[in-house]
Amino acid sequence: MSLLVIGSLAFDTVITPFAKADNALGGSAVYVSVAASYFTKPIYLVGVVGDDFKEEHVKLLKDHNVDIEGLQIIENGKTFRWGGKYHDDMNNRDTLFTELNVFQDFDPVIPENYKKSEYVLLGNIDPTLQLRVLKQIISPKFIVCDTMNLWIDIKNAELLEVIKQVHVLIINDSEARLITKEPNLIKAAKMIMKMGPEFLIIKKGEHGALLFSKDKIFSAPAYPLENIYDPTGAGDTFAGGFIGYMQKTQDLSFENMKKAVIYGSALASFCVEHLSTKGIENLTQTKIQERFKEFLSLTECSDDEK
Amino acid sequence: MSLLVIGSLAFDTVITPFAKADNALGGSAVYVSVAASYFTKPIYLVGVVGDDFKEEHVKLLKDHNVDIEGLQIIENGKTFRWGGKYHDDMNNRDTLFTELNVFQDFDPVIPENYKKSEYVLLGNIDPTLQLRVLKQIISPKFIVCDTMNLWIDIKNAELLEVIKQVHVLIINDSEARLITKEPNLIKAAKMIMKMGPEFLIIKKGEHGALLFSKDKIFSAPAYPLENIYDPTGAGDTFAGGFIGYMQKTQDLSFENMKKAVIYGSALASFCVEHLSTKGIENLTQTKIQERFKEFLSLTECSDDEK
Repeated sequence: MSLLVIGSLAFDTVITPFAKADNALGGSAVYVSVAASYFTKPIYLVGVVGDDFKEEHVKLLKDHNVDIEGLQIIENGKTFRWGGKYHDDMNNRDTLFTELNVFQDFDPVIPENYKKSEYVLLGNIDPTLQLRVLKQIISPKFIVCDTMNLWIDIKNAELLEVIKQVHVLIINDSEARLITKEPNLIKAAKMIMKMGPEFLIIKKGEHGALLFSKDKIFSAPAYPLENIYDPTGAGDTFAGGFIGYMQKTQDLSFENMKKAVIYGSALASFCVEHLSTKGIENLTQTKIQERFKEFLSLTECSDDEK
Repeated sequence: MSLLVIGSLAFDTVITPFAKADNALGGSAVYVSVAASYFTKPIYLVGVVGDDFKEEHVKLLKDHNVDIEGLQIIENGKTFRWGGKYHDDMNNRDTLFTELNVFQDFDPVIPENYKKSEYVLLGNIDPTLQLRVLKQIISPKFIVCDTMNLWIDIKNAELLEVIKQVHVLIINDSEARLITKEPNLIKAAKMIMKMGPEFLIIKKGEHGALLFSKDKIFSAPAYPLENIYDPTGAGDTFAGGFIGYMQKTQDLSFENMKKAVIYGSALASFCVEHLSTKGIENLTQTKIQERFKEFLSLTECSDDEK
């Protein structure tokens, strides 16, 4: 009963129309782990940081039941850094800089007691690394892969190899179109399903998310947020909430996966309300349950005949 | 018990990546009336055509319980014509030409027995004409206004005057942003609600639609269409299905309006599956009910605790 998470740990410099953060804690594995921690424990984290990664950050992870045996801390190394600036509409952003630092030579070594993890979340990193992780896992039951446009562009073959081996692929709408070169999202989804995954989640930002199985579709609404403070990490947080709930419930049915999509969306909605990981650091089960119910009520419609 | 519809009647030349139509029947009032006819009758139509408007088109309207006493047929006049070409993604289009013809001097005169109509649909036309219609109505109970970016740009003051007087405004997401200059859709919606209407519907194309009251939001999914043959008239058809259901049920509650949004969405999903009005000419109650239920099932999610 454990969840394995691989991804990046980073210091992010983020500029939005409403806020600015310098070297704030970020990275896909961080957001995924913290979000998943509200549903399951322990979380086996595999990643790399430099010795500039502060004690307070390690404490944050430990406080969220993250096991850091798989976290490589490189002496005299610098943690991965990313800088981005969001446009006024908050839907688009420009990358200001990327410093790979210790990530450059990262070789994900999975500790022995992590290898039997049945639930695996391949966070958004180079698909070459995701493949190396898959080779070390002994009996995975449910593998979820998150990725981004960069890897579709520059590591396409490797990414397609990953996609073949996972149960769920999570991407956004523009990535679904990019990977298939098909403008119609439903057609694009069917094409991606033929590439291997049993399930596909297409995130659509302010328009919610779609969950696909071979023959079913679920449409999850977006939470009506008036103030999006910082969208960084929303996708990772979604993935963390999603797999956390799946791991907790041990029910791989489509019906249960719908609820996992709503829990993922709920966690992501908390994430964007604050800078960095602040929005998901101190959640309670009550808050999460309330938001889950708010999500469901957004689409409630009676089918009584008049 | 009658529904008053004002709008354009047109001959459309439409080019999509999959089809082409020359001088096909179109116009906001046509789509609205045909869609509404599946819920209520008679439909009082106010509009103008030239004597090139064919008998088969009049027959189509009459077959759908449209009363054409308010339809002005101008001798030696030419019906309004519009030409448009859709981009590959079907979400955007370029206007190829607009020939106002008889629409140029159109003065909407409402026949006496139309004036007591309680349900009024102001289809997408010049807001100056929409205002002239409003002045002639005696005791409207439920006025719905559809509009487009063109009128926001060139007849802003007149449009704002219309918006003040209607119960429901229907626009799409880019129009909501255009009218308010606010990128956040939820903030934009709240700003528009302050301009007058009690309810607001924001259509989001492939992402569904949002219905707003002062304190509630309903999120309607989009029907997962793989083949969109011709998007022309989808917005008008939505409006027609929406007000048709409202008129039929005579229930102005938010709960009932949600269902009207789904019926509008269902009708629109039939519309785009074929060229011109073909997709909505021969629907049955069974087909409509089936699609309504399919819409509801897209967002069905249990809230049982695990």
